[in-house]
Amino acid sequence: MDFKIEKPNQEIKNQLAHKIDNKTKPPGSLGRLEEIAQKIGLIQQTTTPELSKPSILVFSGDHGIATEGVSPFPQEVTQQMVLNFINEGAAINVFAKQNHIDIKVIDAGVKGEFDETIKQKIINLKIAEGTRSFLHGQAMTKEQCNEAIQKGAEIVQQCYDNGCNIIGFGEMGIGNTSPSAMLMHLITGESLETCVGKGTGLDEKGINKKRDILSKALAHYKSNGSPLELLSHFGGFELAMSVGAFLKAAENKMTIMVDGFNITAALLVAHKIEPNVLEYCIFAHQSDEKGHQKMLQHLNAEPLLSIGMRLGEGTGAAVAYPLIQASVNFLNQMASFEEAGVSNTE
Amino acid sequence: MDFKIEKPNQEIKNQLAHKIDNKTKPPGSLGRLEEIAQKIGLIQQTTTPELSKPSILVFSGDHGIATEGVSPFPQEVTQQMVLNFINEGAAINVFAKQNHIDIKVIDAGVKGEFDETIKQKIINLKIAEGTRSFLHGQAMTKEQCNEAIQKGAEIVQQCYDNGCNIIGFGEMGIGNTSPSAMLMHLITGESLETCVGKGTGLDEKGINKKRDILSKALAHYKSNGSPLELLSHFGGFELAMSVGAFLKAAENKMTIMVDGFNITAALLVAHKIEPNVLEYCIFAHQSDEKGHQKMLQHLNAEPLLSIGMRLGEGTGAAVAYPLIQASVNFLNQMASFEEAGVSNTE
Repeated sequence: MDFKIEKPNQEIKNQLAHKIDNKTKPPGSLGRLEEIAQKIGLIQQTTTPELSKPSILVFSGDHGIATEGVSPFPQEVTQQMVLNFINEGAAINVFAKQNHIDIKVIDAGVKGEFDETIKQKIINLKIAEGTRSFLHGQAMTKEQCNEAIQKGAEIVQQCYDNGCNIIGFGEMGIGNTSPSAMLMHLITGESLETCVGKGTGLDEKGINKKRDILSKALAHYKSNGSPLELLSHFGGFELAMSVGAFLKAAENKMTIMVDGFNITAALLVAHKIEPNVLEYCIFAHQSDEKGHQKMLQHLNAEPLLSIGMRLGEGTGAAVAYPLIQASVNFLNQMASFEEAGVSNTE
Repeated sequence: MDFKIEKPNQEIKNQLAHKIDNKTKPPGSLGRLEEIAQKIGLIQQTTTPELSKPSILVFSGDHGIATEGVSPFPQEVTQQMVLNFINEGAAINVFAKQNHIDIKVIDAGVKGEFDETIKQKIINLKIAEGTRSFLHGQAMTKEQCNEAIQKGAEIVQQCYDNGCNIIGFGEMGIGNTSPSAMLMHLITGESLETCVGKGTGLDEKGINKKRDILSKALAHYKSNGSPLELLSHFGGFELAMSVGAFLKAAENKMTIMVDGFNITAALLVAHKIEPNVLEYCIFAHQSDEKGHQKMLQHLNAEPLLSIGMRLGEGTGAAVAYPLIQASVNFLNQMASFEEAGVSNTE
């Protein structure tokens, strides 16, 4: 688990700024689209960046902690939703289809077996049939955690080798806002109160119960606080795979679309391992899940969208993608003042 | 100028809510996309709405007030930018092309003649070669204002007759944040300080000068305060056409994508004429132009995007369109819990 993530060479920055400022528009008037265009230009080290084979990897896995009553949905929904992904009935299918994004559904550790016909449509990277409950001990072994990170990295490498240069990660796993809240709490130092939200839809009473459970779980955590230790103790297989996916994508200088609460929790871990990962990240949206805003602040990140979504699956990344396209397209396609024969400011 | 705008029948509201809540996702987890889906369902009176031939009309016109020094760009830029639209080099061209939106470029009152070859690609609705400066008197006659409203309505009617059911309006006109600021000031009651912003890019000194000029112009305005009076005195031809366009689109029960500062100023006028117009409006973005946030508050409107754009041309509507598509698509394409065999909350 050794990732070499370089900070993009900044030399091309002035050239990019010059090109952006000479487009036929008032300076700065495309707002954040200009910032994104510049970021992707830096990542790709060119003033004519291109987005190639956009992909979203949907990592799915189950969580032992779900059996403790932290979610209003039963655990079998994880597997059912994976079938829904395969049958193209989920939100991520609809948004990915609309915006011509390829999605890959990955069994990172779903509880339950899939039929043979289904298996052929899933990428099977199953580590185990769900994690153990972290209420009384660690969710996975350090070996399992390493394996998950490695597999997440490998699947991203395959996408890269097939020509993908912009990628997002999504997740499905009943109960997974609980591990994410723990990771957030222990990495950012925010209170559990701040980190614990309604997830798929808990009411006030349910949120209190969830916080109590997580608070108890905290008592069993005695560690050196290394990212890997933390991830093994509380993480899910889909979150650990996302960590590896983030790091490998950044190593490959791919543009990364960051989704919501759970995926950003994985990024917190990846960022602790290798801070330069942020140089490759575009934050797609701010989730309505309570802790996400503070998570983003911790990463000094400004989301593109803030429209009250909190669905997971990578849906925030999928709906934000056209804004990223717009950034690259204006940079490549708009005329300059000179080309258009338009007078600049007096 | 008589528009009959009905409030959509609310009977279908429960059916829409039921359909949205039975999609395979936690209730409410698609946030504002759910609200937009419901709004379009109400507008079209169906639980299976469709978006047909999305269009943006770019109304272009010149402003006498521009000669008083309210903009850092020279007035000929209006005509030059119209040529840029025709040559597909402007931001609106790039974003409309990306998102498969038809754009029509309309000469509402640009100063200067176009070549014959260009004329064939523009919709010529020219009222006059720009308005008069409203520093000492009214910008246009009441007859011109009525004519512009009428023509704006007619071009929307043509789009509707050709099968378009979702439409946005954009504008181009050097100096046009000045009339918009005046309309905003006199309709919302906000101070000129609040209404006057940097437009295409004034510095602090320039903004002060602009505000002084507008303040002087105010002294010459003695009227009964009717929307038409106001629009004739300060408006531009492109703004007056947008007013007619808004009203006709709402009369035809089309979904309207509302762009930024200038177009929302036109909507303030349309709303004063017929408040029900808002039932058909989706607010695409919040412009970075100073007054826009307060304008939106005045209309009790929440924008979809807030990414620092302030370019005009309808660009905010164009980049927000995929989010509106996503709303309709999830409503039509996502599986219900029953269809997908997914367990609902326990």
